[in-house]
Amino acid sequence: ALATPALAQAMPEVRWRAASSFPRVFDILYGTLERIAARVAQLTDGRFRIQTFPAGEIVGGLQVLDAVQAGTLEAGHTASYYYIGKDVAFVPFTAMSFGLTSRQMSAWFRQGGGNELAAELFRDYSIVAHTAGDTGAQMGGWFRNEITSVEQLRGLKFRITGLAGQLFNRLGAAATLVAPADIYPSLERGVLDAVEFVGPHDDERANYVRVARYYYAPGFWEPGARLHFMMNQRAHAALPDLYKHAIEVACAEADADMTARYDAANPQALRRLVAAGAQLRFWPRPVLEAAWKANEAMNADLARGNPRFAKIMESYLRFRTEQYQWFRVAENSFDNFAFSAAQTVR
Amino acid sequence: ALATPALAQAMPEVRWRAASSFPRVFDILYGTLERIAARVAQLTDGRFRIQTFPAGEIVGGLQVLDAVQAGTLEAGHTASYYYIGKDVAFVPFTAMSFGLTSRQMSAWFRQGGGNELAAELFRDYSIVAHTAGDTGAQMGGWFRNEITSVEQLRGLKFRITGLAGQLFNRLGAAATLVAPADIYPSLERGVLDAVEFVGPHDDERANYVRVARYYYAPGFWEPGARLHFMMNQRAHAALPDLYKHAIEVACAEADADMTARYDAANPQALRRLVAAGAQLRFWPRPVLEAAWKANEAMNADLARGNPRFAKIMESYLRFRTEQYQWFRVAENSFDNFAFSAAQTVR
Repeated sequence: ALATPALAQAMPEVRWRAASSFPRVFDILYGTLERIAARVAQLTDGRFRIQTFPAGEIVGGLQVLDAVQAGTLEAGHTASYYYIGKDVAFVPFTAMSFGLTSRQMSAWFRQGGGNELAAELFRDYSIVAHTAGDTGAQMGGWFRNEITSVEQLRGLKFRITGLAGQLFNRLGAAATLVAPADIYPSLERGVLDAVEFVGPHDDERANYVRVARYYYAPGFWEPGARLHFMMNQRAHAALPDLYKHAIEVACAEADADMTARYDAANPQALRRLVAAGAQLRFWPRPVLEAAWKANEAMNADLARGNPRFAKIMESYLRFRTEQYQWFRVAENSFDNFAFSAAQTVR
Repeated sequence: ALATPALAQAMPEVRWRAASSFPRVFDILYGTLERIAARVAQLTDGRFRIQTFPAGEIVGGLQVLDAVQAGTLEAGHTASYYYIGKDVAFVPFTAMSFGLTSRQMSAWFRQGGGNELAAELFRDYSIVAHTAGDTGAQMGGWFRNEITSVEQLRGLKFRITGLAGQLFNRLGAAATLVAPADIYPSLERGVLDAVEFVGPHDDERANYVRVARYYYAPGFWEPGARLHFMMNQRAHAALPDLYKHAIEVACAEADADMTARYDAANPQALRRLVAAGAQLRFWPRPVLEAAWKANEAMNADLARGNPRFAKIMESYLRFRTEQYQWFRVAENSFDNFAFSAAQTVR
C-alpha cells in the first residue's frame, strides 16, 4: 500500500543495509542484529527496514567500521576493539583485561561518561553508535596442556588477538594469529597450544574440546564484551527523530537481551562440553596476579603514547575503582554464599 | 496542530495516567516511570502521552495493581510482591530470598519462561505487564546492635515486610509493621531494633544511620528486585501495535537503565554513609546458613498449599540451579579475584 502524504512525511519509507561482524553460525551474536532490525520495523509500522548481512556477505567481519565510515553500508554490528589497528582507544569500549563487568559497563556507558567518550572517538570516523549487546564474562579458552604456573606461559603458542594478545606476550607467551579455519588443525598438530574464543555456547560449535581439552575460567581479558551498532553519520542525520529513537531503544533492549540469551544457553552448553571431555580449570592465582601486574603496566605504557586512550582510561579506571568497591559489598557477598549454598549448607 | 487523517489513524492521540508505587524522593525508582513515559512519547512523535503520578497522589503506593485492574488508571509502575496478600505467587516476579540475581532474573524472564508465568498470573487480574527496572542486590538494612549469631535474631523487632518478614519470623525475629513516617522515631526509642530498605542511594535519604548504625550486607532476601509496568488489559488491547511495541521496548530499556543508575550512585552514597558513621558489617555465615535452610523449608511449605506458586517455583528453582552453577565458573571467579586485586596484589 502507498502511504498517504501526511504519514509519508512523518514516517517515510527508509531502507538500510547493515552488516554483522559475525557469521550466522554464532546465532546469538548474529541474531542480535536481526532482532534490532525486527524491533525497528515494529516501531515504525514496517516503514524503516534494515536488511541484515552476516560477516563475509558484503564485507568481512573486521571491515564493518570501514564500510560504515565510507557509507558503503548505512550500519553495522561489531565490536569496537576489532579496530585496535586504527587506535588502541577503541578497545575500552568493548572489553579490557581486569576491566568492568558487563553490568558495570552499562553503568559506565550510561552514567559514567562512557557513551560520551565513545561518541567523541566514533565522530572522527563519521560514525554514530549505540551499545548493542554484551556476552557477559567469557571463558579463558582451550589449552592442550594444563597451566599450573606462570612459567608455563613462556613460549605458549596462544591464538589470542588484540590487546589481550599483547598482554600474554608480556607474560612470555607467543600470541599467534591463525585464520579461523586453520585453528582446529593447528591445535591438532601442535602448531598451536591454545585458543581463546567466547563462552560455552559459541565454543561448543567450534568443537575445540576434541583437540585441547583443558577449559580455563575466567577469560580475565573479557569480563564482558560489549558490541556496538554503528551508523554512518550522514545516514543517521537524515533520519526523522522517531527513527533515531527507535534505533536507540532497540539497541538498549539488545544490551539486556543478548546477555540473557547467553546466560540461559551457557549452563547447558557447559554441561555438554564437560560430558564431551572438557576439563574445567581455574587460573592459578599466581597467573592472575602476574597478569594483573602486567596489565597495569601495559595500560600505563599505552596511555603515555596516546592522549585519547589516556583520557578514556582515566574515566574508565576511576569508575572501575568505585564499582569494584561497591560490588564487593552487596553483590559479591551474596554470590559467594548463595551460588554454592546448595552444595555447602548441610 | 491537528493530525491529518492518515496520521491520526496510524498514530492516534492517546492519553494515559500511570501511578508509581514510589514517592518522588526516591528519584531512581520514581524517575524510571517518568523515563518510560518520555521514551514512549519520543517513539510516537508525542502522540501517546503517559502522565505520571508519584505514590499517594491518585492512589497509595500499595494500591497500584488494584487501580490498574479496576481501570481507574491505565497503568502503573510497581513491584508485584507488594500484592502477596492476594497471592504469594506474586513474589517470585520481584525477588526471592537466595533467589536469582538481577541479571539471572533477566534471563529467566526472557529465556526461561518467567515472562509467560507472570503473564498467566497477571491475566487473572486483567493486567498485561512488562518487567521495568531492577535495583540490583540490596543491602541488609540498619541495626541498632551488631548481630554476631543466629541467637541474636530471637525477638529482634525488625521492620521487614512480605515473605522476607515471614522468613525472619521463622528465625525467631519479630517482623514488625511500622508506618514509614514512624520508623525513624521507633528506632530512636527502641520500639524497633532494625529496619531494612533498599541500598545506599535510597537509604541515605532515609537517614537511619543516625539511629541504627550497623549496616548489613547483603540483603539476601533481595539479590535483585524487579519492578513491573502494569497495564489494564482493555486499555492495552485498544492500543495500535506500534504503541504496544513502544511500551514494551521502553520497559526493556528501563531494565538496563535503572540498574545502571543504582550502580553509578550507590558507591558514592555508601562512602558518604560510612563517613556519617555507618558501620559496614557482613552477615555471619551461621546466620546465612540458618536463613538458607529456613527459606528452603518455607518455600516448600508454601508450594504445598498453592499449586500456582508451586508451578512458578518449579521453573524458578530449576533455572536457579543452572544459573548458580554457571555463574560460579566465569563471573564469580573473575569477581573474586578482580574486585580485590588492587588491594591484594603486591
